[in-house]
Amino acid sequence: MPCELCAPSAFPELYRDDRLTVVLVTSEPDYPGFCRVIWHDHVREMTDLSPSDRAHLMDWVWRVEAALRTELSPDKINLASLGNVVPHLHWHVIARFAGDAHFPAPIWAARQRDGHVPPTDGLVRRLRRHLTA
Amino acid sequence: MPCELCAPSAFPELYRDDRLTVVLVTSEPDYPGFCRVIWHDHVREMTDLSPSDRAHLMDWVWRVEAALRTELSPDKINLASLGNVVPHLHWHVIARFAGDAHFPAPIWAARQRDGHVPPTDGLVRRLRRHLTA
Repeated sequence: MPCELCAPSAFPELYRDDRLTVVLVTSEPDYPGFCRVIWHDHVREMTDLSPSDRAHLMDWVWRVEAALRTELSPDKINLASLGNVVPHLHWHVIARFAGDAHFPAPIWAARQRDGHVPPTDGLVRRLRRHLTA
Repeated sequence: MPCELCAPSAFPELYRDDRLTVVLVTSEPDYPGFCRVIWHDHVREMTDLSPSDRAHLMDWVWRVEAALRTELSPDKINLASLGNVVPHLHWHVIARFAGDAHFPAPIWAARQRDGHVPPTDGLVRRLRRHLTA
């Protein structure tokens, strides 16, 4: 099966350079502030990257975290690089709110309630502006 | 309620310096290769740290990942900084195996089977040696 993260993402692109792409994951209605930072090369683990590539990838994880904090004022940021299903390096950067569907559990745990999160009008535009400023 | 990560950890310590401590989380029998990197100061998010502190913390996450890869040859490493329950910076560094209790789902998802993982005899000693070499 071809790797789905080697193909261009179907999600709105927030930033792209020669090494990585940042997208807004728009397939999770419970989590409108869910970004993914995808490394372009098909690499499995962070310790398979060179130190400078690793620093570049994490620099963009921090930039995305900062953008989400500024734009959405979440109660917590969740960061994860799992890749058990798709072993191609990518980071989940997720704005979490005390009233969201799983809080305080991870979003992969059992759903706890119908979630409520703040309005996210124009979020693609706002995050793009923040990340390319 | 006092923050449980501000108190000394009850888990076996693998490494400690003036800014962080690495422990082996021995309370999860399904996941013998589960380490935690705990920042000492009560800080909420990665972007609340200075760039040099952030780099130091991640350097130790990578060292722990490398140690787990060397000692256990896992099928995947999972990295996560969540902190919804305890908003004090800490990283989970988890060795995952294709036969473990949740694979390929995150360890926080529904259990899929009685898990099987490789033997981990002497793991505390081996990881300590690796991390302090």
